[in-house]
Amino acid sequence: MISCSMKRMEDKIVTFSKFGDTGKGGITRLSLSPAALEARDEFCKRCKALGMEIKTDDMANIYATLPGDGDLPAIMMGSHLDSVIQGGNYDGVMGVLTALEAAETIVTEKLKHRHPITVVVWTNEEGARFEPAMMSSGVITGKFNKEAMLASKDVDGITFKEALEASGYMGEIENRMNPNDYMALVELHVEQGPVLEAEKKDIGIVEGVVGMINYEFTCAGQADHAGSTPMKFRKDALFAATKVIGYLHEEFDKLDSKLVYTTGRITASPNIHTVIPEVVKFTLDARHQDPEVIKQVVEIIKKIPTEIEKCQVSFKELWSRKTIAFYEEYVDFVEKNADLYGYSSMRLYSGPGHDAQYISDIIPSTMIFLPSENGHSHCEKEFTPLENCWKGANVLLQTILDIDRK
Amino acid sequence: MISCSMKRMEDKIVTFSKFGDTGKGGITRLSLSPAALEARDEFCKRCKALGMEIKTDDMANIYATLPGDGDLPAIMMGSHLDSVIQGGNYDGVMGVLTALEAAETIVTEKLKHRHPITVVVWTNEEGARFEPAMMSSGVITGKFNKEAMLASKDVDGITFKEALEASGYMGEIENRMNPNDYMALVELHVEQGPVLEAEKKDIGIVEGVVGMINYEFTCAGQADHAGSTPMKFRKDALFAATKVIGYLHEEFDKLDSKLVYTTGRITASPNIHTVIPEVVKFTLDARHQDPEVIKQVVEIIKKIPTEIEKCQVSFKELWSRKTIAFYEEYVDFVEKNADLYGYSSMRLYSGPGHDAQYISDIIPSTMIFLPSENGHSHCEKEFTPLENCWKGANVLLQTILDIDRK
Repeated sequence: MISCSMKRMEDKIVTFSKFGDTGKGGITRLSLSPAALEARDEFCKRCKALGMEIKTDDMANIYATLPGDGDLPAIMMGSHLDSVIQGGNYDGVMGVLTALEAAETIVTEKLKHRHPITVVVWTNEEGARFEPAMMSSGVITGKFNKEAMLASKDVDGITFKEALEASGYMGEIENRMNPNDYMALVELHVEQGPVLEAEKKDIGIVEGVVGMINYEFTCAGQADHAGSTPMKFRKDALFAATKVIGYLHEEFDKLDSKLVYTTGRITASPNIHTVIPEVVKFTLDARHQDPEVIKQVVEIIKKIPTEIEKCQVSFKELWSRKTIAFYEEYVDFVEKNADLYGYSSMRLYSGPGHDAQYISDIIPSTMIFLPSENGHSHCEKEFTPLENCWKGANVLLQTILDIDRK
Repeated sequence: MISCSMKRMEDKIVTFSKFGDTGKGGITRLSLSPAALEARDEFCKRCKALGMEIKTDDMANIYATLPGDGDLPAIMMGSHLDSVIQGGNYDGVMGVLTALEAAETIVTEKLKHRHPITVVVWTNEEGARFEPAMMSSGVITGKFNKEAMLASKDVDGITFKEALEASGYMGEIENRMNPNDYMALVELHVEQGPVLEAEKKDIGIVEGVVGMINYEFTCAGQADHAGSTPMKFRKDALFAATKVIGYLHEEFDKLDSKLVYTTGRITASPNIHTVIPEVVKFTLDARHQDPEVIKQVVEIIKKIPTEIEKCQVSFKELWSRKTIAFYEEYVDFVEKNADLYGYSSMRLYSGPGHDAQYISDIIPSTMIFLPSENGHSHCEKEFTPLENCWKGANVLLQTILDIDRK
């Protein structure tokens, strides 16, 4: 049975880990930064060496294609090369490197395929430099308004448009993937969570992406002096916020145990140690594959009193997404191929969002997950053992070949 | 009975409100900023017009003096002219303007006094541009190391030293107030709290400044992905922090009702809505005039478990101060003079720190408080009615004259 090369896989991981190396085991490779452009250059150099034809579209998405026979639609695999600040060497890049390794195996082993095979690199998946995340897959699938995205600014005030134009990777709008010309996307990604490792599984068969809601809560009190305001006169927005967070935990913990919810961002104003917090805002991210559970979450949110600890409490939905189901036939291919190699596997839903979830709106798509050591992700500790990466490349390769043979 | 001029008092308030005017009822007059230098220029212009002699020391503290008879020690009154960002028109500046009005009354009414009378402006009381607060009174009383203060930077990276040198107000170190040459400081200030207003009192007789402690708490968890980390695997530092804050409220509320405590600053890291908070830090400021109560606060802090919600909880004291008692004879003068004018008054301790608390270490000192509408301070809503300011100037004037007659 054909396999990818573990040695080549290792070389790819080591090489790409240099682009944006923080020196502490991880990378900072913000979208279209010099480090990200170095990674793109290396990717293109390697694709050209394999005889692939490279195109970029107006969002700087890169499509590197091994030609097929005649006019058949192409099969796509890949992910993204950008990272968050002090991110790891696996998130995103592993989907590109396993795709590159699968393509290299096809070329070096002269594996026959009828359909063109495209390795794709999506621009700005993380949204860490330019918000929002999954920007370019979002634009080409009509989720985001392109003009608004071009105006998105990084912390230095540079717009995404300026970064795009300076990158050398901006191509024509005509080069965007046309759904009529593609029959599949398979995106391999690290799990970014602890489940596969805890269950001792090599491969995650991703059935879909869970639905989620994102809310922002605001507690509004009164900024008074810490030293001169007796407790009974206070309207302490932080104290109110701790009560709201406590209530959310208490109530959500009664719901289905697969529900995950996170209050990840909190800001206090004026945020001075000698002043009572006037306004505290925090976010709530809640995810579950069953829309009924998400509905229960919203019901709990709606029951929050409008006044807590003399502060006004309000909330608004920032955004939400419905649960996405991947293309069943391809999901089954992934499962079959994990079995074929004798790798342990399990079905699961993705909690995080991925480019494949947008692309799945326009072409049949699926994903393959690899275990993340201790579940760490978006940090320098992010790690997936080489052997697992290689196993992922093998399952990806076979899945692409299965789709080709359909 | 001699009184200050309410009309002149109004002119002073209106004039000084223009320096750093935010256009929304308040000022931004950070220490040594162009707006603060305009206020200093106006102050010096007015002092010169009254025939006062002006000196500045190496920390740019301004001493404007009406000469006395012979070699007697001087009596000092005043406060500061700097403000926080979007602060009000009363904090600090009212102590300078009432002192200026008292001096103007002495000059225009040709009131006899034996001792020199100095109106003082302390540099950088707020610490809003250059930390710490009460910097210059702290330096001249040996609380702070001058070299460390000179190195303090604002958000633009400008050092306090650079700002001092550029100000035109830096004088000789020999010009610092010598405790042998001064017999009193009386600092008038707005209360910055709601007590005088709630008790319907015109004048606060300040017995001292309450002792305080300032702690920083750190909750350390693990930054994992909001979508892929089941609840049972989480170490959510924000959730842990809400538990600690809840515990502090619960326990502190059992102590004396005059205790005030504030968790004013909170920061979460990485502070991204899709990532579980890894590290949350927050401050605790607790104040009470009785050291025994502060001791009880510290006991409660020490009982916090080192692990809460699977996060490591730690704390450290950032700084503290003991309760300061003002000079009893001068405190009594203030009370007597409020009675003399028929103003309602009450004794109280200051919760906030003030320059007078440092100066009281080297010369006999006291303070006069004026009501703050709704207790607001450090915000544009800060307000004390003109009549109250005028009443304060009268009590200040009489107190200075009492000290002069001692």
